[in-house]
Amino acid sequence: MRKLKAAILGCTGAVGQQMIRVLEERGFPLAELRLLASSRSAGSKVLFNGSEITIEETTDQSFKGLDFVLGAVSNPLAKAYSKSIVDSGAVFIDNSSAFRMEADVPLVIPEINPEDAKLNHGIIANPNCSTIIALMALSGICRLSPIQSIVASTYQAVSGAGKEGMEELESQIDCYSSGKKIEPKVFPAQILSNAIPQIGSELENGYTTEEMKMQNEGRKILHLPEMKVCCTCVRVPVMRSHSISVEFVTRDPVSVEQARAAIASAPGCRMVDSIEGRNYPTPLDTTDQDLVYVGRLRRNLIDPERGLALWCCGDQIRKGAATNAVQIAQLLFC
Amino acid sequence: MRKLKAAILGCTGAVGQQMIRVLEERGFPLAELRLLASSRSAGSKVLFNGSEITIEETTDQSFKGLDFVLGAVSNPLAKAYSKSIVDSGAVFIDNSSAFRMEADVPLVIPEINPEDAKLNHGIIANPNCSTIIALMALSGICRLSPIQSIVASTYQAVSGAGKEGMEELESQIDCYSSGKKIEPKVFPAQILSNAIPQIGSELENGYTTEEMKMQNEGRKILHLPEMKVCCTCVRVPVMRSHSISVEFVTRDPVSVEQARAAIASAPGCRMVDSIEGRNYPTPLDTTDQDLVYVGRLRRNLIDPERGLALWCCGDQIRKGAATNAVQIAQLLFC
Repeated sequence: MRKLKAAILGCTGAVGQQMIRVLEERGFPLAELRLLASSRSAGSKVLFNGSEITIEETTDQSFKGLDFVLGAVSNPLAKAYSKSIVDSGAVFIDNSSAFRMEADVPLVIPEINPEDAKLNHGIIANPNCSTIIALMALSGICRLSPIQSIVASTYQAVSGAGKEGMEELESQIDCYSSGKKIEPKVFPAQILSNAIPQIGSELENGYTTEEMKMQNEGRKILHLPEMKVCCTCVRVPVMRSHSISVEFVTRDPVSVEQARAAIASAPGCRMVDSIEGRNYPTPLDTTDQDLVYVGRLRRNLIDPERGLALWCCGDQIRKGAATNAVQIAQLLFC
Repeated sequence: MRKLKAAILGCTGAVGQQMIRVLEERGFPLAELRLLASSRSAGSKVLFNGSEITIEETTDQSFKGLDFVLGAVSNPLAKAYSKSIVDSGAVFIDNSSAFRMEADVPLVIPEINPEDAKLNHGIIANPNCSTIIALMALSGICRLSPIQSIVASTYQAVSGAGKEGMEELESQIDCYSSGKKIEPKVFPAQILSNAIPQIGSELENGYTTEEMKMQNEGRKILHLPEMKVCCTCVRVPVMRSHSISVEFVTRDPVSVEQARAAIASAPGCRMVDSIEGRNYPTPLDTTDQDLVYVGRLRRNLIDPERGLALWCCGDQIRKGAATNAVQIAQLLFC
């Protein structure tokens, strides 16, 4: 197989750094990896497969000769560089939300809709982290019946706000322990010993931008334009795995036993489901690994015929972002 | 008004201690307050209204001459002492779950079903903490239409496991900060930087005992025997206020504006609902006060006609337990 040339745009953030590690872990066949960041980080060196790579300042010329670019930057930066990337002939696999809902941009979870990736016109979007984790948990069930509706309440890790989010929780733990005053900077309120029911900004319907992603992106990924999702997104003092309480209704009846078997055999999922054995997903147990853990599977008491409920956890930086993006590159090139 | 004689059974726990403070704050007209605990605590002194009260060891003779007893002990102890309390002529206002579902025991939230309290035969049960907080948030809406169904995902504070639960979170914060190993004792897993989807023990239908309380107790309190509740109870690293994501459907359509007005005017509730103003309930903001805060009110996208969604927080030890019990005593005697 031809060895590939790739870049990571935004290589110094939590997701960008994780992309480097995931490419390395998976032995991705790379002839070259360019690490791109702002001028502030340019010149720093990063180890990749035992060799040092020097971080370069990103310019419109950075993408020449590349096969693909993994994007881990903000929406404005993703938009600003997308034309140069596509013009250079590279595929832009972008973790921002800038392009996710554009009609000619596939939005891909490789275990769910790999075929969509082939339809790209130079840009493929990586879905929202909570959306990836919830849909991964439901992916086995989707093979048995279309999902009609989902109620989701999230317990989202501080890593969703990047390195700064994780540093804020760390520093608040230290402040609390040493009796110092806690002053929130990254989050709208103290996150230690708290739960903040706001992620993203407010929309006219009273939902946040983050909450609507699960319906908007979920419909596109599952090819279910009518699927209804009522989502509540909450930040909790957890470092880097998201958890989601998911209550859903399928079009066709699915028994708990059928659902359990489907989840257990779904690629990328692990079923852990014994209350008495204290064996159920927790964000700590799922930290720094690629699997989405699913448990607490039971009938949804609101609709005992076609409803089910479950609890799932997955690492926000890995499967919720970096790993999913690298998997998309694997789909295209490996 | 005649001054009353009362006791607190289990006065040294988190809820028992709070009952002392709530009686004091409310200027409850007491001629006598007996503080009852195990032999271990007997002899210790507690300040109440400026005077010292000596804690006594509980015996079957402890209740003579009393008007009411506030119970803050485990189910077995509540059962063990209930006969002596009732035989003594005192009303037993019990915070345990031992009697909640018994047909001749009223289960009361004073803002919702005060009339039920009068029907007691010597025992009145205080509902489950999450049930109180969720139903308080819905109490205004219940006056507009019966509730048909509720999906609830809880974010429950460690205080639900008593003083030991709070000490465990405190000690895990200290261990983390000083690099010591964290070993869970009270909770089934590390609670710091985690979320544990198990409170209570497993039932045959895959729900936990804690999760079924919201349906079972909710039906009894609201006099809605058909109401369906799908609840997921999760312990989070928060000190003493529970938060709940509530998605519900009413029998009759209720607009967001009607719901907002009803919640804002519901006794015991405070509506705080502005995402852009960063004004929404958080467990930290609601700690150590009696109001249940409600926010994030919006249409439930699963059922835009009759569905609504909200987020509420309330202090687990106060309105979730001690305050509600003292309010029941006020209902009966003041």
